[in-house]
Amino acid sequence: MKNIKISAFFLLLGTLGLNAQSLKSPDGKFEMNFQLKAGVPYYDLKYQGKTVVEDSKLGLRLLRDGNIQFASEIENKDQKGKNLDTGFTKTAEKFDTKNETWDPIMGEKKSYLNHYNELAVTLNQAENDRYIVVKFRLFNDGLGFRYEFPQQKNLNYFIIKEEDSEIDLPTDMKAWWLAGDYDSQEYQTQTSNLSEIPAKWPTSYDGNASQTLIKNAVQTPLMLKKEGKDQLYINIAEAAVINYPASNLELDAENFKFKTHLTPDAQGAKGYIQTPAVSPWRTIIVSPKAEEVLASKMLFNLNEPTEYKDTSYIHPTKYMGVWWEMIIGKSQWAYSTANNVHIGKTDFTKLTPNGNHAANNTKVKEYIDFASANGFDALLIEGWNTGWEDWFGHSKEFVFDFITPYPDFDIKMLNDYAHSKNIRLMMHHETSGSATNYERWADEAFKLMNKYGYESVKTGYVGNIIPRGEHHYSQWTINHYRRIAEKANNYKIMVNSHESVRPSGLSRTYPNWIAAEAARGTEFEAFGGNNPDHQTILPFTRFIGGPMDYTPGIFQTKLDYYFPGDTRFVKTTLAKQLALYVVMYSPLQMAADLPENYAKHMDAFQFIKDVAVDWDDTKILAAEPGDFIHTARKAKGKDEWYVGGITDENARNFTVDFSFLPKGKKYEATVYADGDTADYINNPQSYKIYKKTVTSKTKIPVKLARSGGYAISVKPKN
Amino acid sequence: MKNIKISAFFLLLGTLGLNAQSLKSPDGKFEMNFQLKAGVPYYDLKYQGKTVVEDSKLGLRLLRDGNIQFASEIENKDQKGKNLDTGFTKTAEKFDTKNETWDPIMGEKKSYLNHYNELAVTLNQAENDRYIVVKFRLFNDGLGFRYEFPQQKNLNYFIIKEEDSEIDLPTDMKAWWLAGDYDSQEYQTQTSNLSEIPAKWPTSYDGNASQTLIKNAVQTPLMLKKEGKDQLYINIAEAAVINYPASNLELDAENFKFKTHLTPDAQGAKGYIQTPAVSPWRTIIVSPKAEEVLASKMLFNLNEPTEYKDTSYIHPTKYMGVWWEMIIGKSQWAYSTANNVHIGKTDFTKLTPNGNHAANNTKVKEYIDFASANGFDALLIEGWNTGWEDWFGHSKEFVFDFITPYPDFDIKMLNDYAHSKNIRLMMHHETSGSATNYERWADEAFKLMNKYGYESVKTGYVGNIIPRGEHHYSQWTINHYRRIAEKANNYKIMVNSHESVRPSGLSRTYPNWIAAEAARGTEFEAFGGNNPDHQTILPFTRFIGGPMDYTPGIFQTKLDYYFPGDTRFVKTTLAKQLALYVVMYSPLQMAADLPENYAKHMDAFQFIKDVAVDWDDTKILAAEPGDFIHTARKAKGKDEWYVGGITDENARNFTVDFSFLPKGKKYEATVYADGDTADYINNPQSYKIYKKTVTSKTKIPVKLARSGGYAISVKPKN
Repeated sequence: MKNIKISAFFLLLGTLGLNAQSLKSPDGKFEMNFQLKAGVPYYDLKYQGKTVVEDSKLGLRLLRDGNIQFASEIENKDQKGKNLDTGFTKTAEKFDTKNETWDPIMGEKKSYLNHYNELAVTLNQAENDRYIVVKFRLFNDGLGFRYEFPQQKNLNYFIIKEEDSEIDLPTDMKAWWLAGDYDSQEYQTQTSNLSEIPAKWPTSYDGNASQTLIKNAVQTPLMLKKEGKDQLYINIAEAAVINYPASNLELDAENFKFKTHLTPDAQGAKGYIQTPAVSPWRTIIVSPKAEEVLASKMLFNLNEPTEYKDTSYIHPTKYMGVWWEMIIGKSQWAYSTANNVHIGKTDFTKLTPNGNHAANNTKVKEYIDFASANGFDALLIEGWNTGWEDWFGHSKEFVFDFITPYPDFDIKMLNDYAHSKNIRLMMHHETSGSATNYERWADEAFKLMNKYGYESVKTGYVGNIIPRGEHHYSQWTINHYRRIAEKANNYKIMVNSHESVRPSGLSRTYPNWIAAEAARGTEFEAFGGNNPDHQTILPFTRFIGGPMDYTPGIFQTKLDYYFPGDTRFVKTTLAKQLALYVVMYSPLQMAADLPENYAKHMDAFQFIKDVAVDWDDTKILAAEPGDFIHTARKAKGKDEWYVGGITDENARNFTVDFSFLPKGKKYEATVYADGDTADYINNPQSYKIYKKTVTSKTKIPVKLARSGGYAISVKPKN
Repeated sequence: MKNIKISAFFLLLGTLGLNAQSLKSPDGKFEMNFQLKAGVPYYDLKYQGKTVVEDSKLGLRLLRDGNIQFASEIENKDQKGKNLDTGFTKTAEKFDTKNETWDPIMGEKKSYLNHYNELAVTLNQAENDRYIVVKFRLFNDGLGFRYEFPQQKNLNYFIIKEEDSEIDLPTDMKAWWLAGDYDSQEYQTQTSNLSEIPAKWPTSYDGNASQTLIKNAVQTPLMLKKEGKDQLYINIAEAAVINYPASNLELDAENFKFKTHLTPDAQGAKGYIQTPAVSPWRTIIVSPKAEEVLASKMLFNLNEPTEYKDTSYIHPTKYMGVWWEMIIGKSQWAYSTANNVHIGKTDFTKLTPNGNHAANNTKVKEYIDFASANGFDALLIEGWNTGWEDWFGHSKEFVFDFITPYPDFDIKMLNDYAHSKNIRLMMHHETSGSATNYERWADEAFKLMNKYGYESVKTGYVGNIIPRGEHHYSQWTINHYRRIAEKANNYKIMVNSHESVRPSGLSRTYPNWIAAEAARGTEFEAFGGNNPDHQTILPFTRFIGGPMDYTPGIFQTKLDYYFPGDTRFVKTTLAKQLALYVVMYSPLQMAADLPENYAKHMDAFQFIKDVAVDWDDTKILAAEPGDFIHTARKAKGKDEWYVGGITDENARNFTVDFSFLPKGKKYEATVYADGDTADYINNPQSYKIYKKTVTSKTKIPVKLARSGGYAISVKPKN
């Protein structure tokens, strides 16, 4: 605390009354400065004395301020002089500091450290007799800042035209980026210098069920690397996106400058605000070490503790699913041959079965048997409910009722059967993007889940959002996801949302929202493929804000196994799939492949059976975005460690240093490694398994094949 | 039936295989012809051999047909050659006829006659291998037609860009019209020739809480009059608007031609259709007598019988309300002085009361006492629930929860008190246009109503609709109103919707939707005034599709009574207010004024106490839109008649001919007439009451003051 106290003291002596304030991080390595230039707020950020963010502007433009007349609420004209971006004077500054630990309900560590110095600047806009607060929190791993809009006479309601928060970088740098979009995050990550983005942008995305691209913009979280002598890794993201749209970053590629670009609604408005309110935190994680970016818990620290009264029902979940066989096209979600059905009117028992419906009693029981025999917690079944015949692409609002099973899915029998074998079925609520319809049915749907003992639901938002004109990441839809999480909590149900907005640390506040997809998951291996470096990047981007239901565990990577001549394949070795359970943190983890494929490799499958999904501790052993990640984690409440390492399209060697283990204690390590001739194209299923006694002094060299990996379980030696 | 059979026979002989068909009305007075010209469908309409509608085009343009790809559903390019408006060949025609009566649950007569000849033409569009049906029903009071979209291989889902149904009139004529709008019907009716509409249009509307005007378009129902030798009254409207937007009429004022103009959604689309589906009926009521237009039940006949299993809870309702005193500004909906509240967070018990909250226990009890003493069924209380402090104009989605009373409104006590006095409280659900929010709370809100014994709800949609970008009359919102009516039926609740879409005869199918506002009601007398001719027009326009909750009964017409110097006044005599209970049919009728005002005129108030609101029979004695209406009705199940007559800004004489009474029976008529010096400006409260024995041979001359009227109750003489 010494640093900040002295700093604050000097500020009081030296700069009070001036327009500039500075703040240092608890370890003194970061310094940020705030100043007003001609009434416009700016900040900068330095690390070890070197500029990370140059003077960057802050502020918001409004569609309309608080004085709304008896007329239409939205006016598409710019109201100059009424924006919250200029004409400010500083009327107060307040320093604060916090150094605390808190225990996530599930997480990568037992406790997270929340340690920061804070500066809150009150900015008065005399012309409109109103004020806002800009709050900065400087951690030892970077900066977060947000706008606060206190309730006051002249600031009660406003509509955001755009938030103009800038991040002005001093130089060109390497970026791992996704094309900006209001509806999809399911693109391949692109790797290029910032200056190259405009040229690369037009070919950086492929088709998606719902997409609305933003030219030359990129998505958050964005991973950057300043290469060379003063190497730095920078992650730009946002935390606590609540009642506010998610943001992209507009790029000025000549000046290496980003500006916030919020997701609009159907009318082009970017947020309806009632005070008191706060914006999400804009976050800039900075470290010379890539590993420390992965270790950052800044986004969670910037979210509020949960107000849920009971979180006892929230638990880690390892699950299988009647799913991959539909993704690859081996069976179907739909029950019948019909192509036009009306929920509540069509009698599905009278339709002609297509004979290929996956979610049937016989098949589900087989999956239950396998999942139970191998110690899983749950089984997801997609395509259980009526409506899949014409669920997609018709902007059909009443597309599902979420309560009516197909004729060949006996919901009571199957749940009873599952429970008798210690398995919970996982509910599936695909909305087809029809969020209004889902809200209408959610109570009935959750009651049905309670009735039959479902503990968790996978939600889905494939396709354009209804209310029509809203986007997957606009304020209304972001409120919808939260509303569903809160409603699920009322029914003690855990939520795993797909095609929802990328998480921003909300699992701290809404801990039953245990995972989300919100990025290009394993399913895309069947829809066009994921690059071999994909999983080495996601932990630096998508996972920064929360767990992803990536659905790893594909053992049968070549789809010509099912469909002779089919050239699709999962771009991975089998061992790399095992490693993903460690590299990609999620308290919800799927073993996505078919039981028959696991049955052929029960020795390798043992790792999936063993691996924990909730952790007391995590050590990032080595990482470089786009190249490799090596991670060790200690299982929650157990003296067991799991290690995973993955590589991109390049084969690599790595030496696992077990110094993370407690000194002097012997463990038995079981190593699941790529076979000597393993290769993600030519020999993906080659692996070897061997055991070795290890201590904190042990080092094990491993060889990773192209797009390969390894996994190690480490258990106490008796 | 002879006519149609012969007609059909000749058609079979003579025109089958040709592209033209003709159809006659049961009484032979109407003839319509359908033909294809170069693959484009046309119809015309003749009355007594004279053209009423010239050859007018039919068809729809689509945004996209059924072949929707894995991409965004809406494309704003015109897909030429894919529309449903050309390239047709006739492949079948089918004639049908119906002559039946049916009994409305509540209505203007005990039984309605549904008598028509029907022609259904199947139109094949070979290029797209699909077909549609155009169905015409010709009644003795005019024509209805609609499009039918059978489910078929190449017609499953489509999005309407526009419906292009034309009504091409042969000549200029007089029109009573409202400016076209997607959100408001609350304008003054304009009276002009069609050819004058473009010049008058820009000044034809005033401001509204939500409005989206359509230049040079006019609203339905539209009333027209061809003056001169072959005088004809024509009413253009629509029936059974379900899962489809409401329409305006685009005017080609040079050619006296109308074209349908549907209400778009946030994306500009005008209807998402899944087959099988039908459009609303386009209706053209035609008669040489204005009285017969008022008597037409065509719109109800074109709706389907209800499928409700239990309608026993639906009953006529005469009510008072804690309402007018807020409308005029004497008291407030809001409880506190706060101007920014958060539902679910703000503790309203801790706010400072504004001291002028109308819905307080003391006042409500006084209203209950008065309503009970005077035989009313129900009492509306607005402003009972939290949220009114900032309910309007902020595009606030969570604006009300519909279940939380203000601290000074004891919901249990007041309902118990009301029930002990044979009064039901009427619930009020103002949504502020936030339909999504209302749908979220509707079940809880209706459960609360059931718990406390409310039988009916007044809903309100003041302000722009949420989902943002939707309109009051777009497909989504129209589905919302219906959904609320159906949900209310589940709770056995009657609905009276305000600021909702104009009715299109839906009360036949959804009989608990007993009334709607959907036009400029009495409240506008306090917001800018209603013209003296207003109520002589509404029965020809707004009421054609269903009952309106006009809220008549204002005795204290000058607002300077409350606010010295206030120049606002209700443009009516007191006697005219009484007449409105007969002239304006609604099974839900309010006595809108304050108890204290009725207490001063208990003799006149007696008519409101006596008058029925549900009827065995109705006789339109005389009517001319914009000038006068005289109506006699027989009370449902009683040997009592009520007569009402109103005039516009001109004083008139009228002789009430009691020949509607059964012959030879004596009745006592109580006449409530304008006083000799009555005048809506100078002496509105002057009235006289006298009794007279009447038989079917009696004629009573009455004198109507400027904007005056009279009311007569006719009861059997003992």
